[in-house]
Amino acid sequence: MIGRQKHCIALEDYSREEITQVLDLAVSMKEVLRRPIKKVPSLRGRSIVNLFFEASTRTRSSFEIAAKVLSADSLNWTSSGSSVSKGETLIDTVKNLEAMHPDVLVIRHSASGAPGLVASRVGCSVVSAGDGAHEHPSQGLLDAFTVREKLGTLDGKILTIVGDVSHSRVARSDIYSFGKLGAKVRLCGPPTMMPMGVEKMGCTVEHDLKKAVDGADAVIMLRIQHERIGAPLLSTTREYSRLWGLNTKKAAEWLKPGALVLHPGPINRGVELMPEVADGPASVILDQVENGVAVRMAILYLLAGEPVEGKA
Amino acid sequence: MIGRQKHCIALEDYSREEITQVLDLAVSMKEVLRRPIKKVPSLRGRSIVNLFFEASTRTRSSFEIAAKVLSADSLNWTSSGSSVSKGETLIDTVKNLEAMHPDVLVIRHSASGAPGLVASRVGCSVVSAGDGAHEHPSQGLLDAFTVREKLGTLDGKILTIVGDVSHSRVARSDIYSFGKLGAKVRLCGPPTMMPMGVEKMGCTVEHDLKKAVDGADAVIMLRIQHERIGAPLLSTTREYSRLWGLNTKKAAEWLKPGALVLHPGPINRGVELMPEVADGPASVILDQVENGVAVRMAILYLLAGEPVEGKA
Amino acid sequence: MIGRQKHCIALEDYSREEITQVLDLAVSMKEVLRRPIKKVPSLRGRSIVNLFFEASTRTRSSFEIAAKVLSADSLNWTSSGSSVSKGETLIDTVKNLEAMHPDVLVIRHSASGAPGLVASRVGCSVVSAGDGAHEHPSQGLLDAFTVREKLGTLDGKILTIVGDVSHSRVARSDIYSFGKLGAKVRLCGPPTMMPMGVEKMGCTVEHDLKKAVDGADAVIMLRIQHERIGAPLLSTTREYSRLWGLNTKKAAEWLKPGALVLHPGPINRGVELMPEVADGPASVILDQVENGVAVRMAILYLLAGEPVEGKA
Repeated sequence: MIGRQKHCIALEDYSREEITQVLDLAVSMKEVLRRPIKKVPSLRGRSIVNLFFEASTRTRSSFEIAAKVLSADSLNWTSSGSSVSKGETLIDTVKNLEAMHPDVLVIRHSASGAPGLVASRVGCSVVSAGDGAHEHPSQGLLDAFTVREKLGTLDGKILTIVGDVSHSRVARSDIYSFGKLGAKVRLCGPPTMMPMGVEKMGCTVEHDLKKAVDGADAVIMLRIQHERIGAPLLSTTREYSRLWGLNTKKAAEWLKPGALVLHPGPINRGVELMPEVADGPASVILDQVENGVAVRMAILYLLAGEPVEGKA
Repeated sequence: MIGRQKHCIALEDYSREEITQVLDLAVSMKEVLRRPIKKVPSLRGRSIVNLFFEASTRTRSSFEIAAKVLSADSLNWTSSGSSVSKGETLIDTVKNLEAMHPDVLVIRHSASGAPGLVASRVGCSVVSAGDGAHEHPSQGLLDAFTVREKLGTLDGKILTIVGDVSHSRVARSDIYSFGKLGAKVRLCGPPTMMPMGVEKMGCTVEHDLKKAVDGADAVIMLRIQHERIGAPLLSTTREYSRLWGLNTKKAAEWLKPGALVLHPGPINRGVELMPEVADGPASVILDQVENGVAVRMAILYLLAGEPVEGKA
Repeated sequence: MIGRQKHCIALEDYSREEITQVLDLAVSMKEVLRRPIKKVPSLRGRSIVNLFFEASTRTRSSFEIAAKVLSADSLNWTSSGSSVSKGETLIDTVKNLEAMHPDVLVIRHSASGAPGLVASRVGCSVVSAGDGAHEHPSQGLLDAFTVREKLGTLDGKILTIVGDVSHSRVARSDIYSFGKLGAKVRLCGPPTMMPMGVEKMGCTVEHDLKKAVDGADAVIMLRIQHERIGAPLLSTTREYSRLWGLNTKKAAEWLKPGALVLHPGPINRGVELMPEVADGPASVILDQVENGVAVRMAILYLLAGEPVEGKA
């Protein structure tokens, strides 16, 4: 359990304490991950099933490594070549999986809400690895971890998220994790890509990039998805890059000293982020990847590593 | 070894004692699978190779979990992206695999007889995970296990298999396992889908569903394969469902109290089985999935877990 | 470390002593692989990532088994369904992977030089599993191991490589490993498939197969790649087979007694090698496969199994 949470599906439902519990444990997990012998027996005999209905090697591998470092058994279930292609329903698939006694189901699905639906129907813990444009909670937690690690705290910090916020599950999870940990969140991007009612989520919207990053302690550059370019929402890649991309000149002139640059990856180099910035001193992008494994180790441990008496 | 059997390819070749040996051990294996720490060292240092020439996440995962609970190393070898796509013959592929010292090869192949051919050419044990329209022995064993667990015995029970028996490797393995354990097997389905000469296998054929399930202790509803619908064998899905599908009304009126409903999955909900029946009190479909892991643990253990002296 | 080598990318850079170090250790590794309990704890807590940008089940499985026997964690990262398909650069992909703390990256890539480029950018060890038409060092080592095991030494032996040498990374690695261990290397094949300047590599070229294999202690038959047939380099399969293929008659009349026949697999039976030869007494093709696992165990152990003090 993470606080009162049996699942990790939506940071919207998480309290500051529950988020902090994960981040605090992830500090120890990162230390384990950096050992020459990266192996602890914490989850020996527990099984983690990765159930990915959307392609993802990066996030899946991060969960798989996290499971293996903790000595859990990890099983990859991909939708291609599975009974899903024979027309089985999502619920039938997960009920079948559940019958094989997994301890945690890690699910990525293109439909917002799919992990929540699954959680309502199975007895084991469910972790969302991203669902539609809803949430990507482990990303929200690792981003908060990375900022906290570098800046000491999120309390009172100004964190700016730049890009297609409307369609970004990363942005949604970041908004919750950052806000609950005390940060002020600014959103910036094309007006067509700003969600309605974000003020209710405690964010401010700023359409001018210079103003949005002014005084910010960290800037999270979202990946622009190619399939949206040329669509009504956005004219061209060049246009996007000129207005909302971050290059060396803007970074040097507009960012305050010591401000961090984050990106969930994979980067469109030359579009939302110029290579000099992605690889520059402000970038903590590879820290995010490393921290991702540590945070996922913490999530899996808290959900599957409970005292044996409390299970089965 | 399972009795005199080095392989698990065809239940046609298995004796009642050999089938019973697997089922008896599977009882203990199921207990292991239900522990919070699902891990025993029985097959540590043994390797199980899953060689699937037909797509299957379900059966492959079941074998993979079975191997991992027993601490065996499990390797997945899929035909896509393998040397098979470069034109290598089946025998060359398995001889190559054999040179890497697997203890058990688990093979699924679209050609009936492929696992038997492989077994004749390699030194290690071979387990069929389904070959063409021939057999699917681990399914036949888990179905027998499930019925035995619920009814205490198969001796003298009436078990009815409904659907496209001709093309079903599940049906063939069920017929052998049920019959050898003493059950009376009835077959029911479209006349075009009944195999010739089933009487020799000790079965009776009944084309009317009501009569076929009358007095039956369990009904095994086969999956109707979409690719056969519309073909000369079958008119429409609706027609199939009306005549050979099981809905709540038929189940309530025609099945005797306490009769079990089995299905090998994945279910075509609304075709051969209505959701209310699949999810109803008579259904043991998810038990079958769980028992599948236990039965496969027993098979792998018996074939690969022999005394070390007897090997190498 | 293998001698001074942190990586295993090109045997061109390896000394005789470094090659010998791998082969000597592989002798012990082969003994481990042949045990009934194929498991030693040498690489427990180390992680090996297989990063294959070209399809390969055979080589990938060999590395995966090698890792598992040594108790390392093994992760498969395939390009399909990964962030590569979202346009991520090779370097971004491997920098991301590196952030997850692998000990060894095993890379196959269609571009010659890709593993070397990666090695220059990451902190961990890199093993090439084949890059373009450059090198396939573990194949070169396992071929040398196989010849040495059968003949006692390579010193002074005559080894003939037959086929499309120009496009073969296997041939290039063989030329280096054989030559450095003291063998005389002859090349044979269509004139259009002989690389320029091979004399500098210490080889001789002989276009007539009979002369090329005369007195040879071993003949390495390369796989002819179907995509080259019909191209300007080669007329037909039949033509190739007639001139450069090895059948029983040629083998019996032209090879000296005790000469070995090797092939990297998968074999085009009936093209470069007739079945009777591939399966005949001179063939050591399946020994190559077994030795491949042993040699890869040795490579992984030497690169990842260093004293813990020297790492992290």
